[in-house]
Formats: sequence, structure tokens, C-alpha cells
Amino acid sequence: MEVYLDNSATTVVFKEVADLVYKCMCEDYGNPSSMHMKGVEAERIVKRSKEQIAKVLKVNEKEIYFTAGGTESDNWALIGAALANQRAGRHLITTKIEHPAILRTMEYLQSLGFEVTYLPVDHKGCVRLSDLERAMRRDTILVSMMYVNNEVGAKEPVEEAGVLIKRMNPKTLFHVDAVQGFGKFAIYPKKCGIDMLSVSGHKIHGPKGIGFLYIGDKVKIKPINYGGGQQRGMRSGTENVPGIAGIGLASKLIYQELEEDTERMHALRSAFMKDLSMIDGVVLNGPDAGEGAPHIVSASFRGIRSEVLLHALEDRGIYVSAGSACASHKHTVSDTLSAMGIEQSLLDCTIRFSFSIFTTREEIEYTVKVLRELVPMLNRYTRR
Amino acid sequence: MEVYLDNSATTVVFKEVADLVYKCMCEDYGNPSSMHMKGVEAERIVKRSKEQIAKVLKVNEKEIYFTAGGTESDNWALIGAALANQRAGRHLITTKIEHPAILRTMEYLQSLGFEVTYLPVDHKGCVRLSDLERAMRRDTILVSMMYVNNEVGAKEPVEEAGVLIKRMNPKTLFHVDAVQGFGKFAIYPKKCGIDMLSVSGHKIHGPKGIGFLYIGDKVKIKPINYGGGQQRGMRSGTENVPGIAGIGLASKLIYQELEEDTERMHALRSAFMKDLSMIDGVVLNGPDAGEGAPHIVSASFRGIRSEVLLHALEDRGIYVSAGSACASHKHTVSDTLSAMGIEQSLLDCTIRFSFSIFTTREEIEYTVKVLRELVPMLNRYTRR
Repeated sequence: MEVYLDNSATTVVFKEVADLVYKCMCEDYGNPSSMHMKGVEAERIVKRSKEQIAKVLKVNEKEIYFTAGGTESDNWALIGAALANQRAGRHLITTKIEHPAILRTMEYLQSLGFEVTYLPVDHKGCVRLSDLERAMRRDTILVSMMYVNNEVGAKEPVEEAGVLIKRMNPKTLFHVDAVQGFGKFAIYPKKCGIDMLSVSGHKIHGPKGIGFLYIGDKVKIKPINYGGGQQRGMRSGTENVPGIAGIGLASKLIYQELEEDTERMHALRSAFMKDLSMIDGVVLNGPDAGEGAPHIVSASFRGIRSEVLLHALEDRGIYVSAGSACASHKHTVSDTLSAMGIEQSLLDCTIRFSFSIFTTREEIEYTVKVLRELVPMLNRYTRR
Repeated sequence: MEVYLDNSATTVVFKEVADLVYKCMCEDYGNPSSMHMKGVEAERIVKRSKEQIAKVLKVNEKEIYFTAGGTESDNWALIGAALANQRAGRHLITTKIEHPAILRTMEYLQSLGFEVTYLPVDHKGCVRLSDLERAMRRDTILVSMMYVNNEVGAKEPVEEAGVLIKRMNPKTLFHVDAVQGFGKFAIYPKKCGIDMLSVSGHKIHGPKGIGFLYIGDKVKIKPINYGGGQQRGMRSGTENVPGIAGIGLASKLIYQELEEDTERMHALRSAFMKDLSMIDGVVLNGPDAGEGAPHIVSASFRGIRSEVLLHALEDRGIYVSAGSACASHKHTVSDTLSAMGIEQSLLDCTIRFSFSIFTTREEIEYTVKVLRELVPMLNRYTRR
């Protein structure tokens, strides 16, 4: 049995999406900048994708800009907004548990002279609004907070944070890295003061190499690349039409039965957590059953190095992550788990299981069965 | 009959490449950063692509870095190298006929305090080495020159320039935008002093949204994005595995029969130019028959606005460009044609025909037949 439980790292592409991408490569292959029919058709495909995305976010299609993925979206939102608004202030706020695409970009901005406040989180991985309130200053031009944490699945209080920020300073921009939240929650930027929202295609059964950044029409932001002036001068480079078509359709599909899907995933997650908690030495991290994101379970296995368990699971056809797969092999201590105050000895013993809408009860039951066998065995092995 | 003669704007994807991309979306969909088998397999795909590209360039596979396309490659090469080497000097050299991805990036660098010399070109669109020699200074840290001009197909003296630059100052970096040259010429960076080389997938029957930058192993360059540290810390963001697989295979395929392909295209181009030159009011721009790139013909049609002719051709199923399609609809005066000293009245009457390896003699003959009918008719119409 093959069980892919690494969907927070990347997902298989929807069949319909892959078919559409294929068609855009072989038939509708025009360059949207070309003035002839093949260009016009390509432009139409780009517009349709924007409309599909705008519809699920309840925003205007003109507010959707395509990028090469979540990392570019995050880089652009932070660097583009910071540089465009630095006359109003040079203070930025984010959290200690952001993805490296945010944390490393913030460090870059610090090197340019910006000041960054990193908000702590509680033991479940959630930012406290009181900390945000205290951190806000007159010269705070930008707050960036993730929607769902990629390592433990904590759902951040983004909606409340948006209201708080706008109440304290309507000019402070609010960016949300929704790479793990989009497709799992109904997100309406305009309802909760979100000015910019980053999304990646390959986390929602869309293609790799494509993402988008929602930018509210009143947001002051600079482009961070230079060239042919595509996407209204904001993001140069020939539009990745197949990828764009793919992320549009994937966005539509992933939201089509959102409630049923998330309910089913939550049920799977709760059952899985219950079974895990009964295995000796297992400590669950992050949100309780029924809370947080429906697709992520973080568990520490006392005394068993995560790499060892990962490969033992792999031998049984089960694919999981040790920490976050987005950090390119580097086996450094997790910022998120440290910030949550997880016991030092467990940091290196933590596995992330992440589901998708395709994950079945049988797969989870098989995984539990395998863990019940492996964990005591590996524990014995370790104690020797 | 449908005749696509806009291959310098973008190309149809090779069937084999599209099939491979599809497979990477639906089967080999792992994240190269994942430690399990699915991640290892994805990493293997990335490595294979690097090897395919390294083989045609005769470089080391470790010197290939994937980007979202030509624009990102150009931005990275210029900004990354300028910022990394600014202590050695702040003078840059490029040409007046570069793609906007170079020209606009150079303007950005000027705004940061770098000084840029723009080399002129002769009436065929070629840089003179004597101009380059005169422009070189002690504080010149970077020269950027395109391999083939995208509007008229001029082949720049890149090999000779590389030798000249390295003779005058071995520390001056040499970047080549080979977006229009790769796949049309045998290019060996190490033989001719090229330190960085930009390539785009969708100009060589590969996917859109993928490109690469060759960076010689001794080149000092900074990353221009921040995140998970993929591609040895130089270009963060989950690798676009399907796109990467695609550009690798496309690179292999496009070079498989390079000589036969370019010979055939040159023959087509020569025949087409001969026929065009016999139509009343036609002025050919750029390299003579048999010279320059094999796939681009630039022709001005005296008295006929390019947009009018473009749409008249479109009605007959022939797709061409007015100037360069990469400039996103903007109908500004062409930098290239102006720099070549083309008669003012012809600037707005210029059409670019660009071939691919799939272009046939029948298609060209049909195009000539249509032009022979259209041009006198549109000329009469204009004179009224």
C-alpha cells in the first residue's frame, strides 16, 4: 500500500488540471503579448484563471497577479510593500513561526535598515492578539502573518488580526501567507483587512512553478523584477499560461466542496490523533482535534529520531516529512516547534503527517497499524 | 492553412516534452526537498535535466540554476552580479538593443548608483568590438550582451567580445542573454569567456514559466530571492520539477539535429527574403540572407502600418509579430530598429516573421503568396 501523507510539501495534480496544462502546451500555446488570435486566446485563458481565483476570494480579478510560486509571492509582498511605503515608516511585524520565505526576506529587509518585530506564539502555535496590539507602532507599515502554520497546522487569528490592525492604523498593510490555508478555509481578504495574500499552486493539486499574489487595488507596492512590463507593469516575464490555467482551475476545484472535504479531513485527523495518542511515547503538537487546519498532524516520538522513523515508514510505503520539507533538506531545528516551547529532546523526533482531499480512512488505518508496530520496535532499538 | 510565424514570441511545446511534464504532474509529483523516495525521485529528475543542459553547453551540471524564465534569469544575472561585485567598481556595459529584461534592469541598477554604458550597433544590428573596447574601464564589473537580437535576428559577436573582455580585464564578468540564441547556435560558455548565460524554456519548444541561468563556478553572485534555500541557497522556492524536466528534454531535443535544422531554416529564410525583396515597398532589416540567426526575418512594408498588415495576415491564418511581442502590447518605438538607424517612417511598418524547426516550405510559400496579394491592396488603400 502506498500512502502519501506529505501533502503540505506538495500534492499530486488534479487530473483535470494536468489535462488543461497539457492542452495549453500543445494547442493554446500563444504568448498573451502577441496581438494575433493565438495571443488573444492565451490572454483569455489568463483572464479566466484570474476570474476563477477572484471568485473564491470574493475580490476583483484585476487584483490577482501571477508569480512563480509562494516564495516569489512572499518576497514580492514584503519587499515591494516595504520599499514602496518606507517614507511612512520602517517598522515591520511578523511572527516567529513563519515560513522561511517570510523569515529570510524579513532578514534581508533588516539588512536594508528596516526594523522587524517577531511575535511569539502560544504552546499550540497561535499568535496572541494582545502581543500584536502591543507591537503595533505609529511607524508600522506592514504586518505579515501566515494563515496556517506549515509544520503543526495552527490556524492563526488572521481575521481578528486584520480588524485589529486596521482599527489601530488603517494605513498599516496586512499581508497573509496563505500557502497552507488556501483551499482549506474560506478566505475573504476584503472582509478582514487583508491587503495582500500569497498562494502557491502545488499545495492545492495545481502545478508547481506557479502561484499568485492578491494585491488589493489601493495597496502601494513596487514591482521587484524588471522587463517587458507584463501584468500591468507589475510582474514582467511572459505569462506562464499553462501554469496560470492550472492554478485557476485547481482553485475552483479545491473550493467546490470545501465544507464536505474539510469535515471529512477533520474526522480523519481526529481519529488519527486519538490513535496516535495511545501509542507509548507519542506527544502531539499543535492544535487539538477538530481545531486548526484539517490536514496537518504533528507528532513527536520520544526517543526516535525523526529521520529514522521517516525511513522506516517509507519502507512500508508511507511518505511523511521530518519538520518542513520546504527547507530544502536542511535538518536545522524547527523555528515553529522552538517558538511553541516544545521540549528540547522532542524537537528532533517530530514527524509531520499531512493529508489531502484524496486521503482515505484505509490509508490512515494502515498508517496507524504500521506505527503501532514500528514505534515499540524502534524504541527498543534506540534503548540498546 | 494556419501558419505560425511568431516563434520568437513563443513556441509550441514538443510532444515528448508535454508528455514528460504531464507525467511529472500526475506520477512523479514529489518535492525534491522531501527526504522520502518521492522526493528523491523528484531530485533525480532535476539532476537529469541539469545534466542534459550541461551536456549541450559543455559545462558542469552544478553550474545550472533554474528560474521562472528568461526575465528572472536576466534580472538575477545583472542585479545579483552587480551587487556582489560593487566593491570592485560600479560600471556596467550593455547594448542599446537588448531585451527589456536587460534594459529595464539596467535602469534599476542606475537608480542604485551604478553607471551604465549602452553600446550602439551598426545598421545590421551588430555591436562593434571597437566600441566595446573603448567602453571598457578599470571599474567595469559586468558586460551584458545578447546572443541573438529578438527583433531582427542579428547575431552579436559574443565569442569575440568574451575574448576581448577577458583580455582587457579577467575580472570583468560577462553575461549573455541567449534567450533567442540557445537552440539555434552551438554555445560553449567556457570557450568564450561567458560567465553567465540566460535561457528560457518556451522559446525552444519547452514549457513556459521555466528558464535557467548558467553561472560559472567562480562567479561571485548574490541570490535575489529569499526563502527555503533550494538550489544550494541561490534560488529559493520549491523546484518546478515538471518545468525543469521539460526544459532539460527540450534542450536535448533542440540540439539533436542542430546543423540540419539550422541549415534548413537558413534556406527557408533566404528564399523568403528573396521573395519579400521583390515585393514593391518592402525593406528588409537586419542580417543578410545566410547570416545572423536562422529563424528571424524583419521586414518593413512602406506605407502600411504593421498592425494593419498583422491583422490582414491573421485573417489568412498567418501569425506574426509587430516588433517584439515580449513588450506586452505596448506599441512603443522599437529600441532595436531605432538604434540600427532604420528610416523613421518605417519604424511603425515593421513585421517580424519568426520560424521554428517545424516551419515548412509550403507555409513560407503560402505566406509569400498572401503577401503578394495583400501588400499592393493595402498600399492602394493607404494612398486613398
